[in-house]
Amino acid sequence: MGGHNVLLVLANPEPASFCHALAEAAAGALRTDGHDVTISDLFAQGFNPVAGRHDFLTVADPERFHYQSEQAKAARENAFSSEITAEQAKVAAADILVFVFPLWWGSPPAILKGWLERVLAYGFAYVDGCRFDTGLLRGRRAMIGVTTGGTVERFSPQGVYGPIEGVLYPVRRLALEYMGYDVEEPFVAYAAPRVSDEERRQMLDEFAGRAVELAHRDIDRYEPPCHPLDLVPRNAWKRS
Amino acid sequence: MGGHNVLLVLANPEPASFCHALAEAAAGALRTDGHDVTISDLFAQGFNPVAGRHDFLTVADPERFHYQSEQAKAARENAFSSEITAEQAKVAAADILVFVFPLWWGSPPAILKGWLERVLAYGFAYVDGCRFDTGLLRGRRAMIGVTTGGTVERFSPQGVYGPIEGVLYPVRRLALEYMGYDVEEPFVAYAAPRVSDEERRQMLDEFAGRAVELAHRDIDRYEPPCHPLDLVPRNAWKRS
Repeated sequence: MGGHNVLLVLANPEPASFCHALAEAAAGALRTDGHDVTISDLFAQGFNPVAGRHDFLTVADPERFHYQSEQAKAARENAFSSEITAEQAKVAAADILVFVFPLWWGSPPAILKGWLERVLAYGFAYVDGCRFDTGLLRGRRAMIGVTTGGTVERFSPQGVYGPIEGVLYPVRRLALEYMGYDVEEPFVAYAAPRVSDEERRQMLDEFAGRAVELAHRDIDRYEPPCHPLDLVPRNAWKRS
Repeated sequence: MGGHNVLLVLANPEPASFCHALAEAAAGALRTDGHDVTISDLFAQGFNPVAGRHDFLTVADPERFHYQSEQAKAARENAFSSEITAEQAKVAAADILVFVFPLWWGSPPAILKGWLERVLAYGFAYVDGCRFDTGLLRGRRAMIGVTTGGTVERFSPQGVYGPIEGVLYPVRRLALEYMGYDVEEPFVAYAAPRVSDEERRQMLDEFAGRAVELAHRDIDRYEPPCHPLDLVPRNAWKRS
């Protein structure tokens, strides 16, 4: 088995952050293990998370901006902006997608949320009738690595935030699994800013180990037999 | 009882969207009922959702960007950027906060997520030791109005997305309730793009009615006796 292609999408504004250390630990271990790793460091790239007409070289409807309709036209005509095209190429190439981010207000930073919205466009990462078990990206694997300010107790069933599974549910279920990714249990660095250096080293080792273990598994990527938009059933709801 | 001050934060890029119609229906009914309504139309305002040094006129640490530390310094010195100061003034004035947005990938659009991150800053909307029942914004009320592409069946306990309560959990529990808001059951316009005009009119009426009903309730805002940062216990974790 050859190495896998791994895309790490990183969303923390500070290069010296523990998120960056996690991403670098995983990337180093994966490369040593023979895998190909790309990092999208969204803050460093100055990624713009706001959806808009600037996403597209084409215009489906100049009067009314319906995001999915514009995405569909651009997907059909290879007319996404260069910023989006570059990120889509990374996603298309990746057998494994890893998100690394701090939990802000219970979810990924806006810059990563906007990456989902703009890059994982209709007609590229999903279409009507292809979701979950029939998702376009099925057969690929994904993992979330997250740092929290709160302690593990706060994320316990009795804790004020509740279990991390509930907190990460939208991004896991309605985004990653929706597209077909097989999603690992999340890696959570609880209270990362407050633990000892030794505990942080252990976290880095554990995350790197999880990433390498994941990359050792088989990947059986689904390859659509045609343009994804040609998979849409004829009787699918017509978007206005 | 006088009227209340209501802030509607709206996150949809298309002025002719159903989200805009919902916000306008609620705003109209509230004004007719004697309340003061402000709308923050984030796409129209060109709101930048990316956290960064541009948030601040001050610098706490020029070497390492720790967002909460920078927010704390700016909160202490009234040194948020004008964009953030303007939004914070609306939040401070509002007895009732209403979010209106389309569900994208299971959560609010990035532009609204970034509004949470940048506007509801440490030292302004929350501090260590003041959360949930002791949150700085306790006594105020909040409501989420959301439009979905998916049908109500998809959001049923047996549906592929699961109940909307689980989907909205992070923004409700880890953001609004965290700050102390008393949060209403969400208003959900399921499959909004696919329903009939008559059903849409009913939805608009129902949402406007919910907003007015909410504004009829008593509001008993907590007023901190000092600067919020002076409420932080001396033994609170020192952020690096």
